[in-house]
Amino acid sequence: MPAPTTPRVAAAAGSVTSSPASADHPADRLAAAIEALDTPACVGLDPVLSKLPQVLGDLAPVEAIRRFCEGVVDAVAGKVPVVKLQSACFERHGAAGFELLGEIATRARARGLVVILDAKRGDIGVSAEHYAEAARTLGGEWVTVNGYFGPECLAPFRRGGGAFALVRTSNPDGDLVQHLQLADGRSVAEAMADLVATAGASSVGSCGFSDLGAVVGATRPHDAAALRARMPQQFFLVPGYGAQGGSIEDVRPCFTADGRGALVTASRSVIYAFDRAAEHWADQVAEAADSFAGELRTAFGTRS
Amino acid sequence: MPAPTTPRVAAAAGSVTSSPASADHPADRLAAAIEALDTPACVGLDPVLSKLPQVLGDLAPVEAIRRFCEGVVDAVAGKVPVVKLQSACFERHGAAGFELLGEIATRARARGLVVILDAKRGDIGVSAEHYAEAARTLGGEWVTVNGYFGPECLAPFRRGGGAFALVRTSNPDGDLVQHLQLADGRSVAEAMADLVATAGASSVGSCGFSDLGAVVGATRPHDAAALRARMPQQFFLVPGYGAQGGSIEDVRPCFTADGRGALVTASRSVIYAFDRAAEHWADQVAEAADSFAGELRTAFGTRS
Repeated sequence: MPAPTTPRVAAAAGSVTSSPASADHPADRLAAAIEALDTPACVGLDPVLSKLPQVLGDLAPVEAIRRFCEGVVDAVAGKVPVVKLQSACFERHGAAGFELLGEIATRARARGLVVILDAKRGDIGVSAEHYAEAARTLGGEWVTVNGYFGPECLAPFRRGGGAFALVRTSNPDGDLVQHLQLADGRSVAEAMADLVATAGASSVGSCGFSDLGAVVGATRPHDAAALRARMPQQFFLVPGYGAQGGSIEDVRPCFTADGRGALVTASRSVIYAFDRAAEHWADQVAEAADSFAGELRTAFGTRS
Repeated sequence: MPAPTTPRVAAAAGSVTSSPASADHPADRLAAAIEALDTPACVGLDPVLSKLPQVLGDLAPVEAIRRFCEGVVDAVAGKVPVVKLQSACFERHGAAGFELLGEIATRARARGLVVILDAKRGDIGVSAEHYAEAARTLGGEWVTVNGYFGPECLAPFRRGGGAFALVRTSNPDGDLVQHLQLADGRSVAEAMADLVATAGASSVGSCGFSDLGAVVGATRPHDAAALRARMPQQFFLVPGYGAQGGSIEDVRPCFTADGRGALVTASRSVIYAFDRAAEHWADQVAEAADSFAGELRTAFGTRS
């Protein structure tokens, strides 16, 4: 009798996953990656030239960023399950930066990391399809998207991977749009959450979460609780932890009652956690990633 | 006595404008370009491989797109004042596509065209600054932006050029977000319009328009009238004319009472206006651009 649990990973050409279970749904792959390391930690890679280690200072800009990103990816692999690449930081270096973005995504996947392309893309019709295709080609298994165009325009970004729709951003100025009060009592963010929950219901993995997730900033704990209630099947991508001021207690409402379904991101507090003059800066990044992963494991780990 | 009207263009290194008057404000440059050809016409360049002329069929994808875009730019220059480059169509071809986007923007500027980079970018903090820098480096004097993050996040996109914030998109699904009714009676799109009008007031050119414009779809004539009343100082970038169904009467409410302040975009109906088997396809694009410019000149031209 053939084993019904034969891993399907081998059949999914080019995909690297941490777990053979349910490998054909992006939410299941994400859940498995989090479970494998028992920590919902995501390191955000936002490379900025002025903050790089001094030992890279003599290199051309894109080469310095390449060496930095390679070092960070190698340092955090095995410590956190997910990395988020900030597209803007690469795009500003033109075509060479855009190419590097794809190369770093590929490297991260090869190291077993789930890759989120933080590109905040969005458009209508065929343009949305082109952006989605570009994100997949770059190697982003998940991509951040802007839903101002309506939920149909998110659909292309859910083919061949998942998407996190912007619901509640971590910046104070976001209130001026997202906290506007609707006639029915909801905020704009809550209305966006409802659209995301409804659209996302069409594809839910066996982990109970959808391939359409939501960006919900850590700096909004009160909002997060209300948004979690409206989006029980969404993975929350939670920026704003650490450097932006969000604490463990601030991010707790982003999780489900049983402590699942959120991915907490730290960028600056991990990737720049070195003495700029240090030669072995990557060791310090590895330590910071370990420490960040540990904080979240203590708070939200499922193994006792 | 030195002439007080000495053109300032020579001092603005690297900038190409159609008029020496008020050359240091992007809205003035845009107004001057429209006035010079007496037509508020913008050709949208959304290159898609499957629609290219057959004579380009043997080339590698990016090379075929390059030849097509060069042909279109050369064909429409002098006939319309502005081109809008759809970033998604280039990005989907990776780094080579991204590089080509910059090259086509540069070519268009060299031909005297004002260039809008239709990239729908948006993010918070330093990421917004990186995207803005990327847009300028690519050669987009104007860039389309998404204001869901709040108006402060639009500011970086107004440095060194202008920005069109998404207010009302041309797709039916956009209603689900943009037509939500607020407690104060406004729609979300109207609230976004008010934020854009307020933010935009900080930089208004001598033409009376701001460096912060608005995207308002041609398929919403009723909305357009209300939005124009709320945004008297905004240039409207108006997609949806032609192939998407918008008519001259549909776009009329996007203009001010004296017929200024809007830029009507046509893409497919101009750039694919050829017999695919034709060798001289670019001549047919030139004719279509001339015809499109003429329709708008008849309706909105200021010279009798």
